[in-house]
Amino acid sequence: VNEFSKWWVNGAPGDSISIRDRGLTYGDGLFETIAVRDGNPRFLDYHIDRLFDSCKRLDIPCPTDISDQVREIVAGCTFGTAKIILTRGIGARTYAPPEKPTPTRIIGLTKAQPPPRAVYAAGVKARSCQATVSINHTLAGMKLLGRLEQVMARSEWKDAQIREGLMRSDDGRIICGTMTNVFFVSNGNLSTPDLSRCGINGVMRRVVMEQAPKCSLDCVEVDIHAKDLREADEIFLTNSLIGIWPVSQLDEAELAIGPVTRRLMTELVNVGVAECAI
Amino acid sequence: VNEFSKWWVNGAPGDSISIRDRGLTYGDGLFETIAVRDGNPRFLDYHIDRLFDSCKRLDIPCPTDISDQVREIVAGCTFGTAKIILTRGIGARTYAPPEKPTPTRIIGLTKAQPPPRAVYAAGVKARSCQATVSINHTLAGMKLLGRLEQVMARSEWKDAQIREGLMRSDDGRIICGTMTNVFFVSNGNLSTPDLSRCGINGVMRRVVMEQAPKCSLDCVEVDIHAKDLREADEIFLTNSLIGIWPVSQLDEAELAIGPVTRRLMTELVNVGVAECAI
Repeated sequence: VNEFSKWWVNGAPGDSISIRDRGLTYGDGLFETIAVRDGNPRFLDYHIDRLFDSCKRLDIPCPTDISDQVREIVAGCTFGTAKIILTRGIGARTYAPPEKPTPTRIIGLTKAQPPPRAVYAAGVKARSCQATVSINHTLAGMKLLGRLEQVMARSEWKDAQIREGLMRSDDGRIICGTMTNVFFVSNGNLSTPDLSRCGINGVMRRVVMEQAPKCSLDCVEVDIHAKDLREADEIFLTNSLIGIWPVSQLDEAELAIGPVTRRLMTELVNVGVAECAI
Repeated sequence: VNEFSKWWVNGAPGDSISIRDRGLTYGDGLFETIAVRDGNPRFLDYHIDRLFDSCKRLDIPCPTDISDQVREIVAGCTFGTAKIILTRGIGARTYAPPEKPTPTRIIGLTKAQPPPRAVYAAGVKARSCQATVSINHTLAGMKLLGRLEQVMARSEWKDAQIREGLMRSDDGRIICGTMTNVFFVSNGNLSTPDLSRCGINGVMRRVVMEQAPKCSLDCVEVDIHAKDLREADEIFLTNSLIGIWPVSQLDEAELAIGPVTRRLMTELVNVGVAECAI
């Protein structure tokens, strides 16, 4: 039920790639995961923005018609998830990129079920992970294919009641959840981890930061340490598929779903993230 | 000519994998690159040691007969390169690893030409790279599929006279070349970067460290800074396919091929790395 039902590879239906594709051999590529609602890819422009920006940093030519392809494949899907994988394509057995790469474009769509209402109304349990986020300012922010650190963090628990794990950078700063960005509210001030040295620059993170001024909030990007975590009045998680999840418990500590989180959830509903209605 | 000519996927001839393979989608896997000489995979036991050790760290079940498969595929190849790619296999669209993963085993073989003699006799030119090595003590040492940082470093130059680029960790320590480990000789003392926070634990690095005592050398693993680099009398590079390459020039600085490098090259010849004979 959680599997993609439809895949295109380079514009044609397909479900395999060459074992010489640099996406496999070197993690030489990027991906995007996009919420599909009523036949539309939500915040597609923001996903494509990030993809183009990362392609520029990595010098991977990005097909300009990729938006159209995504729109075409998701048309008719009421509630689902689209995925784009873009790699540098097939290459020789050398790290040196081909002079003129022919990128591999993979687009997939799966139908999905909305998350249970309870996670929005009552919040989610989260835990702290041991696996750390790699520090590398030259690669920070991008949604690279290589996500083994998230895989290792997510493998630390099996309890289905725990919805997310928080990860620290290898030097101990709080950076993100395994599949989410994280925000903190302390004395009415909104903050989120600075991602200039590691972490992924999430699309829903961007949306929340853009909506914050509507709630008279100014979100700051800062280094977050364990102490800041303990002093937070509210914590919430974001990603493209879920919108905002309030955190009701982190390890042993219980948290209330506070007014700032609720106001931002309402703002998200106003810009199309209907599942955040509580 | 640099392409693999023969591939096996899960024991059968093949050259494609599913786009749902976690090796592609998350970099959830490992690889090994092995020199083949006169029908034999060189230092195969060391490669398999590292692969098994990494599989244990990542909780990927490693097929116990993978050595036999490599030996079978390389039989008859006089001079070539074998590659193993082992992934956690096909999985659902979630970072959480499957409860019982079925790993994907890819083994490839290509014929190769020996490197030119001059690189051993006269040494190689190397440069310093801007792209950095990610710091993550939970993943350090392993030869993970995700190698984008090496790709980015290798893309910094096109001059074919420059054979390798040295990479620093994101906090400025010298760690490795894009495809090699690196050793330094200073006042007769041999050292190599400590890899507990980042870098790949190379097979030829291990061989060199094991052979060093035969030359009355004790190789120490330490943090190497720019100052240590400038004060080095000798610098050399290692990997499984090349053995040892002496560095004759690093950026603007010229280096002699010194006595320690020569002695270690002779020791490598004695343990089967014939191309190091000068």
